[in-house]
Amino acid sequence: MSKLEWPALDPATVEERRGSGYPEPYRSRMGARVKHRLGDACGLTRFGVNLVTLPSGGQSALRHWHTLEDEFVYVLEGEVTLVTDAGEQTLRAGDCAGYPAGKRDAHHFINRSGAPARYLEIGNREQADEAFYPDDDLQYAKNGDGYTHKDGRPY
Amino acid sequence: MSKLEWPALDPATVEERRGSGYPEPYRSRMGARVKHRLGDACGLTRFGVNLVTLPSGGQSALRHWHTLEDEFVYVLEGEVTLVTDAGEQTLRAGDCAGYPAGKRDAHHFINRSGAPARYLEIGNREQADEAFYPDDDLQYAKNGDGYTHKDGRPY
Repeated sequence: MSKLEWPALDPATVEERRGSGYPEPYRSRMGARVKHRLGDACGLTRFGVNLVTLPSGGQSALRHWHTLEDEFVYVLEGEVTLVTDAGEQTLRAGDCAGYPAGKRDAHHFINRSGAPARYLEIGNREQADEAFYPDDDLQYAKNGDGYTHKDGRPY
Repeated sequence: MSKLEWPALDPATVEERRGSGYPEPYRSRMGARVKHRLGDACGLTRFGVNLVTLPSGGQSALRHWHTLEDEFVYVLEGEVTLVTDAGEQTLRAGDCAGYPAGKRDAHHFINRSGAPARYLEIGNREQADEAFYPDDDLQYAKNGDGYTHKDGRPY
């Protein structure tokens, strides 16, 4: 049992979050992804830090890019397949990737291995952020209508 | 040899940064700390992500707090002593800590173990940020005179 006290913590003591904010049929594609919101648990507001466990067959997200939010991922255990416009690469424990805000190269992880993978995902928070999903009929506007079809219709 | 291509990378391929921006006698206290600026290497600008190797006897920083920058640390290997106003705690691989901007509880890591420690440090970037150092005759204003004595005199 961890005896750490704020501002430190043992991630195992942070509530597990399952599921996704995507509408169906996208939500189900994520698999049994589990997140621990470590930054929130420490009281941070400028950026989020999530510890993610991605089981075999799971996805980190739909392939997407953000207009105003940088993202960074660092692989802690297992291996994941990074998919971008250029194709696929396998990342293993100790590898990382960074996605600058506004760079129109959509990205996500898929776990094609037979074992769970764990990684940290980090992103700054911008109220006017939007996200684009080139492979799916989906778009996101944080200050607007949230997730909609590409023609703006609600889900 | 890593074959990863942007936006992914192997941290071992990122340039090592040694030393610190502190004036003496503070710089020498940090020990032979080594940083790899992973976020910068990926082209990120909203926040920084450094992979830090802290040898036995080294310090992450002088004990400090920031006015506008959240900070987060995640321990990857070894153990470090976190020092805050409340005292000391030992963090090991898998433990983390977060320091909200404006929280006047100064913090740093010291490596009191006999082995190197490794951790990720993350912080958002704010041009008007200032940092305060309760244990030392030092203050920092990013938009102002940088590091000065507490009465404003330059080093």
